[in-house]
Amino acid sequence: MNQTTTYSMKRLKIKEILKGELIGQQVVVKGWVRTKRGSKNVNFIALNDGSTIHNLQVVADVEKLGEELLKDINTSAALGITGELVASQGSGQSVELNATEIIIYGKSDPDKYPIQPKKHSLEFLRENAHLRFRTATFSAVFRIRHAMAFAIHNYFNSKGFVYLHTPIVTGSDAEGAGQMFRVTTLDAKNPPLLEDGSIDYSQDFFGKPTNLTVSGQLEGELGATALGEIYTFGPTFRAENSNTARHLAEFWMIEPEMAFYELQDNMDLAEDFLKSLIKYALDNCMDDLEFLSKRLQEEEKNKPMDERSMELVEKLRFVLENDFIRLPYTEAIEILRNSNHYKKNKFQYPVDWGTDLQSEHERYLVEKHFKKPVILINYPKDIKAFYMKQNADGKTVAAMDVLFPGIGEIIGGSQREEDLDKLVTRMDEMGVPAHEMEWYLDTRRFGTVPHAGFGLGFERLLLFVTGMGNIRDVIAFPRTPKNAEF
Amino acid sequence: MNQTTTYSMKRLKIKEILKGELIGQQVVVKGWVRTKRGSKNVNFIALNDGSTIHNLQVVADVEKLGEELLKDINTSAALGITGELVASQGSGQSVELNATEIIIYGKSDPDKYPIQPKKHSLEFLRENAHLRFRTATFSAVFRIRHAMAFAIHNYFNSKGFVYLHTPIVTGSDAEGAGQMFRVTTLDAKNPPLLEDGSIDYSQDFFGKPTNLTVSGQLEGELGATALGEIYTFGPTFRAENSNTARHLAEFWMIEPEMAFYELQDNMDLAEDFLKSLIKYALDNCMDDLEFLSKRLQEEEKNKPMDERSMELVEKLRFVLENDFIRLPYTEAIEILRNSNHYKKNKFQYPVDWGTDLQSEHERYLVEKHFKKPVILINYPKDIKAFYMKQNADGKTVAAMDVLFPGIGEIIGGSQREEDLDKLVTRMDEMGVPAHEMEWYLDTRRFGTVPHAGFGLGFERLLLFVTGMGNIRDVIAFPRTPKNAEF
Repeated sequence: MNQTTTYSMKRLKIKEILKGELIGQQVVVKGWVRTKRGSKNVNFIALNDGSTIHNLQVVADVEKLGEELLKDINTSAALGITGELVASQGSGQSVELNATEIIIYGKSDPDKYPIQPKKHSLEFLRENAHLRFRTATFSAVFRIRHAMAFAIHNYFNSKGFVYLHTPIVTGSDAEGAGQMFRVTTLDAKNPPLLEDGSIDYSQDFFGKPTNLTVSGQLEGELGATALGEIYTFGPTFRAENSNTARHLAEFWMIEPEMAFYELQDNMDLAEDFLKSLIKYALDNCMDDLEFLSKRLQEEEKNKPMDERSMELVEKLRFVLENDFIRLPYTEAIEILRNSNHYKKNKFQYPVDWGTDLQSEHERYLVEKHFKKPVILINYPKDIKAFYMKQNADGKTVAAMDVLFPGIGEIIGGSQREEDLDKLVTRMDEMGVPAHEMEWYLDTRRFGTVPHAGFGLGFERLLLFVTGMGNIRDVIAFPRTPKNAEF
Repeated sequence: MNQTTTYSMKRLKIKEILKGELIGQQVVVKGWVRTKRGSKNVNFIALNDGSTIHNLQVVADVEKLGEELLKDINTSAALGITGELVASQGSGQSVELNATEIIIYGKSDPDKYPIQPKKHSLEFLRENAHLRFRTATFSAVFRIRHAMAFAIHNYFNSKGFVYLHTPIVTGSDAEGAGQMFRVTTLDAKNPPLLEDGSIDYSQDFFGKPTNLTVSGQLEGELGATALGEIYTFGPTFRAENSNTARHLAEFWMIEPEMAFYELQDNMDLAEDFLKSLIKYALDNCMDDLEFLSKRLQEEEKNKPMDERSMELVEKLRFVLENDFIRLPYTEAIEILRNSNHYKKNKFQYPVDWGTDLQSEHERYLVEKHFKKPVILINYPKDIKAFYMKQNADGKTVAAMDVLFPGIGEIIGGSQREEDLDKLVTRMDEMGVPAHEMEWYLDTRRFGTVPHAGFGLGFERLLLFVTGMGNIRDVIAFPRTPKNAEF
């Protein structure tokens, strides 16, 4: 090919061009065609390069550029275009590009390309997850996913937290619960056996049975009790056979863990953290949020008014602008049992002290009763994990769940039990094998400190921020029962 | 306990205190004891809270604070201390703390605590990886690991790259090579079988055989050819039975992938990226780097002069301040064969066109011949992966390896083959099952573009930046053959 301007000049991103400051200049853009329309004399090409939800309108003179070339330009074709930026005549955009040269890097046969310029169902796009990045909805979702990941790192870095990579393959089960994936290199059909007929795991790669991690918390505590404040941000796994819009077998978690923090400090951090993420989204992703807000309103327009979600940007501001209510579990039970909702038998699940709250209860507290985000604390010890700090009442632990509108629990955490004897007693009661976790107990043996932490499911956060309804639509390549495509 | 000042006041981090701006003020610090020494009348406690390599010297008057209390203060005990900051009399520190109150959060029995205030071998500390965060060396390493991770996210974010989480569990093998870990929920001893006696993977969790990813590149290409520029930063796995100082079974990789980039752009990005990371370390981690530099010099003092490493900070500046040499593989072979080193048979491995260069060759080019970092390009196609762009000569591909002093290859990458027919032909030649990768080929079918990318092994970078010699010492909980502790 010739070294034309389009090849030799550095491309500008459409996000930059649409700021409208370059009118009159010659530029090169490169991207993929969203749509093409036009008449015999002039074609209008909507070009997108992934840098923004907005397309750049390219005006292509048929006579000047040639009919032959233009007829090969279809949805998803890849183009390099040189032209002059001019003020736009049409509405909705400030600037358009008068093309002087168009290079087709790659054609896209409209009879074969699966994603046409029409509305596809989210299910269809999920099956074509390798191409859905090219749609407006999913490019917005994945830009926001990026922005939230960056905001998380930025937040913790600015506060002096150390990012700790806890192990993915592990020989221990952090919570003594949860179905796990086995990681192995043993022969699948004829594994080596010991004399008693059991599997000889000493021959497996790691010399013992290993699984994919369900949480980095316990290892995180090892870091926090030396480095002060740490956080994890990595993949975690659950081999639960749950085919719902809220479950993934592989998902990403953020787990901060802090020495010298008590429950109050933990709550303060969680509230400040979530608000800073929401603020980052509002400050940096408004174009994408507005697009997703319209998408959500469109999706919900056939629902009855009282079943529709809060408008997306309004919902984000709701979290940002309200102090989170902080409420003991025991008081929450009283509020729920005294509610008209309860008296009229409108809750599906029972409300009894000692049972876990269901999503309907959490949402009632947030959306109906307080009309604010809520942090519930001091849960009954028997519905929480062994490592949570035992309160003086002998019945509750210093747990905290942060509840959000629409979604219910978005963060779960606790102060940790720092007393060795109390911890070991509780492990024994709950059947957690303390003898396999001497390394964990060493934090309580040598220089133990009050400490606390919490976990945020990254995809749970993204459902909230993007307004998407299915968790498979906020992770690039979802892993679910019977599905590990791409 | 009483609500003393130490409990009620917010703690200050030692990193802040050592700036020396708070002399005369009353402060609260919390951390772990590194050492305690002193006389009958006064004790000196070196306290560290993980925020910095430096300890705060705490002066404790025995009469005022009580002998009973002070005798329980041993290495690794956790303390909360209130006191007044005063200008230090001693050398090496600007400020010290006159303690008025000391609370022991957790004692540490000196007869049982494994890590004493003396020099331990790195092997011993590896076996106690849960406690090695409390040593100066490892706190420095993990603070630098954090800083480098943040610098990576910050770099790509500032350039408009999208952070993409490619899948950890995968049904495909990216490079058609490498030993992989199987991920399964099937019964390990009695897996379900089909009539022909083979395993019925339809009953496995994902309905087919699945493995831990060896690279996110192929999925990264799907993102880049829609979003423009993406990067991954996640764990990758190799089930290689290699017990060396350079191999991990679980490690973290960074893989940027960029649409509309050719090899030249790829090299420009890699050089700028690495330099920005090194600059970030020099700008933000100098205290830790100086400590690790001394550690390295100490470790190497018994080596002959010509086997010692370049001084750590000097080595980082060497990379920062030199333009990287860009050299075709074919010319590198000529340089090596014309060298006196070669003529005197000092290379252990042969130097023949068509074979891969060994570390000794790479280091010769960087350290002896050019005395600059080197990017080798255009490797013989038969020693590189199927997806690399085929050069016009029919013999080489547009690969690039970035070579660093001491370490050899730190980055490997290439422009990708964007032509569908050429790619499929090469896959057939190399036995890569194209029919299982239709999703990958769709990027070449619909709007294909020139694109390129590279991979940086995060721990490889950290070996370079920290000067540590064993890769198990730059990841918190190393996974290696027969080892998945913690």
